[in-house]
Parts: sequence; structure tokens; C-alpha cells
Amino acid sequence: MGKTYEIVPEGGITAPKGFKAGGLHCGLKKTDRHDLGAIVCEVPAAAAAVYTTNLFQAAPLQVTRESLAEESVLRAVLVNSGNANACTGKQGEEDARTMRAELAEALGVPKHQVAVASTGVIGELLKMDRVSSGIAQLPAKLRGDAQGSDDFCQAILTTDLVKKTACVRLDVDGKTVTIAGAAKGSGMIHPNMATMLGFITTDAAISAALLQELLREATDVTFNMITVDGDTSTNDMVIAMASGLAGNRELSRDHADWTAFADGFRYVCRELAKAIARDGEGATKLIETTVTGAESDEAARAIAKTIIGSSLVKSAMFGADANWGRIIAAAGRAGVPLNVHTVDIRLGDISVLEQSRPVAFDEEAALEYLKGDTVAIHVDLNMGSGRAVAWGCDLTYDYVRINAAYRT
Amino acid sequence: MGKTYEIVPEGGITAPKGFKAGGLHCGLKKTDRHDLGAIVCEVPAAAAAVYTTNLFQAAPLQVTRESLAEESVLRAVLVNSGNANACTGKQGEEDARTMRAELAEALGVPKHQVAVASTGVIGELLKMDRVSSGIAQLPAKLRGDAQGSDDFCQAILTTDLVKKTACVRLDVDGKTVTIAGAAKGSGMIHPNMATMLGFITTDAAISAALLQELLREATDVTFNMITVDGDTSTNDMVIAMASGLAGNRELSRDHADWTAFADGFRYVCRELAKAIARDGEGATKLIETTVTGAESDEAARAIAKTIIGSSLVKSAMFGADANWGRIIAAAGRAGVPLNVHTVDIRLGDISVLEQSRPVAFDEEAALEYLKGDTVAIHVDLNMGSGRAVAWGCDLTYDYVRINAAYRT
Repeated sequence: MGKTYEIVPEGGITAPKGFKAGGLHCGLKKTDRHDLGAIVCEVPAAAAAVYTTNLFQAAPLQVTRESLAEESVLRAVLVNSGNANACTGKQGEEDARTMRAELAEALGVPKHQVAVASTGVIGELLKMDRVSSGIAQLPAKLRGDAQGSDDFCQAILTTDLVKKTACVRLDVDGKTVTIAGAAKGSGMIHPNMATMLGFITTDAAISAALLQELLREATDVTFNMITVDGDTSTNDMVIAMASGLAGNRELSRDHADWTAFADGFRYVCRELAKAIARDGEGATKLIETTVTGAESDEAARAIAKTIIGSSLVKSAMFGADANWGRIIAAAGRAGVPLNVHTVDIRLGDISVLEQSRPVAFDEEAALEYLKGDTVAIHVDLNMGSGRAVAWGCDLTYDYVRINAAYRT
Repeated sequence: MGKTYEIVPEGGITAPKGFKAGGLHCGLKKTDRHDLGAIVCEVPAAAAAVYTTNLFQAAPLQVTRESLAEESVLRAVLVNSGNANACTGKQGEEDARTMRAELAEALGVPKHQVAVASTGVIGELLKMDRVSSGIAQLPAKLRGDAQGSDDFCQAILTTDLVKKTACVRLDVDGKTVTIAGAAKGSGMIHPNMATMLGFITTDAAISAALLQELLREATDVTFNMITVDGDTSTNDMVIAMASGLAGNRELSRDHADWTAFADGFRYVCRELAKAIARDGEGATKLIETTVTGAESDEAARAIAKTIIGSSLVKSAMFGADANWGRIIAAAGRAGVPLNVHTVDIRLGDISVLEQSRPVAFDEEAALEYLKGDTVAIHVDLNMGSGRAVAWGCDLTYDYVRINAAYRT
């Protein structure tokens, strides 16, 4: 049994050495909640990012891409909520550039070392006077403690109900390395990135190239395996920054502590992904779908995502209805081959289908289980060793309420 | 301007010469509504069918396939609602065969000239004593008038609120040809067939092979272009029967009246498809999405289906919210290339986006328009001449209510 990571429940994105964060209300949200925030690193941090697959990419994504293309190094990430700055044409791009330049100047760093992210309504121009005055006040709000992390986390929320963070600690070369993350996302959430905003900080020494590979791999099995509503946003990205201040020898895939580090990194991504799914718009519960026995991991992923994305499955879970017919129907339309005679389905520990045949089960016990705040759906295809896990949430009255009048 | 068809608003599936239909309550539904019905042709009818693409296909589909494989001729279609006879193993298949055999015997026709269809809950065995006693009473219920059509239409409904029929009349060789259809479908409705039950009757003389081609072509642009919830049922099919009793010279693609006939056939399919979308579970309105200016019809279809399937678009339409950002975001994730700078979007006659830039529009007028019972979304990509139309409905509290407790 190799070394592993330790979970730090109270840790936030400022826990790794070198990072400060903060947030404030500049006036983009109608409420008085924070709507502008930043993460700042006291040294140039090796940086990596993954972006939405939506063809309509918001202005801040273009600008962030340009920043990272320069030298894959970031000193700061600036985020606003309340307005996505998407489908805003040339003016929107100019606004994103202005945001980047203003924070760079306020911090005294090159502008290509600043990334920009936005989330909120599509198609409206940013109120730049408010944003600019907020940016001017932001440096004074930055803190290296839990409050700084908390303020930032509040600043990135839209319809989210809870702040989402995760943190782990592990030893690398006898030095303590910390990995932390923060995320937002509640609607327009769907596999293939395109999902939400995620920010990972670590004080490990790691090259930007390896950090990019790790982020991509981790995203595939975490952020890309969640869905709230099947919709893919124009704005979403995950950014990782490594300050290197932990003092470890630079990580490589051959490093003795690589596995522990990569596991810890994936843990942080997975916890954030699950937190987003659980906090899906209107959701009352987290649904975790595990598909095993598939011909390949890819086939398992397709089926897990189809089940977790099915409106009928999601509604049934809201109603605590053990309606496995909808689960098998979703599996059957996932677009991958399967043996229709060998499927097992369990809800938690309750077997409801074996070899594609209904099993008499205790409906009362199933109802009790499905009323819980976490539901595990396990589908075993009994064909091969392919495996995948996907996360989502139930479809509720509140999802409809929230989305029937989002702009108003 | 060539000849065309005439719409017959009052016409039902018994309008074409040679067809009778009927329905009764045998006890599969908890209410006293009809749950068993049949369409019967007094002569062997040339027949065609298309089936769900779901890998889990219900027992009646297997049996119907076998019937049609024999000689593509049908004398009767037997349908029950309240139980899908899907995922019911060998017993389910035996039950579907028994249904077929019992109706064939009651009518005195070969059993391969009988098709069987079922719709309702998945995974429960049919109460065959009730079904059998219903089948025994069914021949006495068959009528060639509007009442027969009406009784049949009621017998095939599940969560549908309204019966769905369409009928046209046209001249072929100076003879009056009638084409009529009936359909059911409200949930588990999604493009690529797999959609619902549809029954088309006509008294035209047409070969089974050509009827099959026409049904397939018409399905692609009608039944395959609707979605209620993205879910694809295990049970659905469309069956077409042609009695040939109109007395026309057999139709072929070279026949002078072919275009009028094919247009009329497509009209009947389209009206049924739209009626299903409008009657989607919990729906308050029909949404028609037209995509033009695409690189190909196929690309237009992909985008139209993605928009009509977006939970966020559907929720916004329920809330009469002119949230075009969700429409463009859906277009951007449809998986086909598009120019992100040249998109126009109209809601009805109200332009909201031109060349991918927001247009100032009258929000009051938009609200008024979107409150109507039919909403047209028009997306012009300004790239080519590809075109498609898709139909769906809004996502409402009632959709959730209906599906949170379907089995209970």
C-alpha cells in the first residue's frame, strides 16, 4: 500500500503556500452577494486550463487562452458572476481585455499572467464602470486565510446554493504539498467540460505541461462525468495553478510520490464535481450511477452519462420511485452495444433487475432508500470489464421554477 | 401548381375504405378508460412499419416484426395501453404471441396478418386473463364510423391528454383516396423513432415495399423530429396499412399523383407528430424550431433537435422568457460546425439576434408572444441551404409531477 493523501475538510484554495484570494460586491448581481473575486499567487504559478466544448465561447475564455498561450504561467485569476460576457461581440472581448489589464496593473504583474472567467446571463454587456471600480478595490480584499477563500467562493456563485471547495494534503519528498479547489456550477451543466468554473491551487512544484496533462485526465473522469440538465455552457473552464512553494523536487510521472499526488488531485476534482451535481438547480439529491461489466470504459461512460441525463430517471428519483424500467430504457438508447439479456440493476443494495429480469423487491425499503440525499444506481452489463461512474441530480419542481424565470 | 390533398378535419383512421376500429376497457388501466383496441381491415392490407431504435425492444415489437416478415400484409393491429410488456422475458414474448393468436382466431385470419403493440409501464407482466377476455369482446366493438376511430384512439392513450388523429383526401386516377392516422405519445418521446405509437390507414393501392419506403422517409422528417424529454421508449412503432379499396391504379414513384399522395401521407405523419409534441407530458405549448442556412439538412436537423431538447430552452419557454442565450448555447453544442459570427434568431416575428449580436427588442411584445400556445423559434445560420424543422414542448412543473410518481 503506497502513500496516499489526507483529506483536509476545512481547507480552501488559499491553503496551498503562496495563494491569496478574495471577493467583493461590485454591483453585477441584484442581491448584495459578492460578484467579483480573484485568486492571486505571490509567485508566477505554472498553469493549465481546460475549456468548454461549446462552439460559442465567451469572451473571457478567448482572453484566458491568449494569456496561457504566452508562457503557461499565471499570477492571478479574475472572476465575475452575474454576467457571462458571452455573445457580446467585439465590445465583450474588449471588456474582458480591460478586466485583465486592470487587475494586472493593480497587482503590478504582466497582463498575460492574468486569466479571466465570467458566469451569469448570456448576451448582455458588462457594466464596466462597476467592474472597474470593483477591480480597483480587489487587491485590498485579498487574504491568505480561510476568509479569503470563502469570499472568493461566494463571488463565483450564480444559482448555486452552497460554496464548493475541497482540499487534500500529502507528502512529496518529505515536504507537505497541499492541493485545493473551488468551483461553481448549478445549471447548464453537462459532461464534456462545458460545465462550470473550477479553480485548483497547489503549492507543489510541477511543470505547466504535466499539470495540463493531469488536469485533462482528471477532468475526463470527474468534471466530464456530471450532468445537471444536459446543457453545455459557453463559459466554463477549469484552471489549475501550481506555485511550487512546497519545496518538493519537481514532480514527474516517474517521481515516487506521483501516484499519491495524482490521486489527491483527482480527489479534489471529483469532490468539486460531485458538489456541483448535488447542488444542481433545484436538486434534492445526488445521484451516482456506476456502470460495470461493459465492453470498454468508453461504453460504460456513454451508458452512465445517458442514465444520469435521463429526465425520466431524474424525475423518478425525485419521486423516490424505483422505476428501473426507465434506467434500462436509458441504457438501451446510449448508442453502444449491450447484451439485452444480461443486465443487473441495483439501487443502493437493493437488487431490482437480474439478467434483465425483474426481481421482486421490498418496495417500502426501496422508497426509504430513494428518499435519502444520495442515491447510488449500479448497472452491471455482465459483458466485460469496462467501468465508469457519473454523477447527477434529480429533476424537480424547483429546477423548472428557477429556469422558467432566470432573467427576470 | 400540381394537384394536392384536402385536409379532412373530422376524419379518423376508419375513414379510408375497408377499415374498422374499436376499443374497450379490459382492466389494465386503473381508470375506466379504454385500454385495448384494434384496427381491422376487411381485406389483406399492404403493410409497413418502423420501430424504436432502443436496444431493449418490447415483446410486441418482436412479434410484429415476425408477422410483417412473413408477407408484409396485415388484417389487424391489436394495441393495449397501461402495460408496455417490455423487459418481461420469455413470458412477455409468450403473452404477445397469445394476444396475436387470440385476435387472429377471433377474426378468422392467419396470425401472421396480425400486429401487436403495447404501451405503459415497463417490467410488469400483462394480466392476460383480462387481455384475453377483452380480445374476445373486441370484434363486436369494431365500427367503420367515427365512433370506432374514437374508441380506438382512447384505447391507446397513457398519460396523453388528447386523442390524436389526422386525415387527408386526394384524387388518384380520378378515384378518391383517403389517408388517415392515429397516434399516442406523451412521455419517453425523442427523435429517431423510438417515439410513440402511430397507425396510418389508407385505401390507396400501393405495394408494401413502396409503402415501407414512404413511411421511412416521412418518419425521418416528422416522427423523428419531435422530442418531449429526450428519452427513447422500448415500445414504439408506426404501422401503415393500405387496403387498396380506393380502386386507383397501383401507386409508383412515376405515377402522376405520387407527389400529391406522398405529400398527403407526410402531412398526416407531421400532424400526428406535432400533436404528440403539443401533448407532451405537462406541456402548455408546442414549440416549433426551424433551422435554416445550415451547411446541410443533416446539420440543420442536429441543431434543431438539440435546441428543442434543451431543458433550459424548454424551461424558458414555459416561463415565456425570451432567453435566446440558451438557444444559441444549445446550437453551439449540437456537434456540427457553424459560424459563430453569423447567427440570426427570431422568436415568431421578433428578431432577438442578428449576425450573432443581440438586437434590442420589445420585451413586452416578446412576453406576450411567448405566452401563446405555439412558439416558433427560427435560427438562421447564414451558411448554406440546409433546413430542418423540429417540434417539442415546454418543460413544466407538471412534467415533474407526472414523472415523479408514474408507477404509484
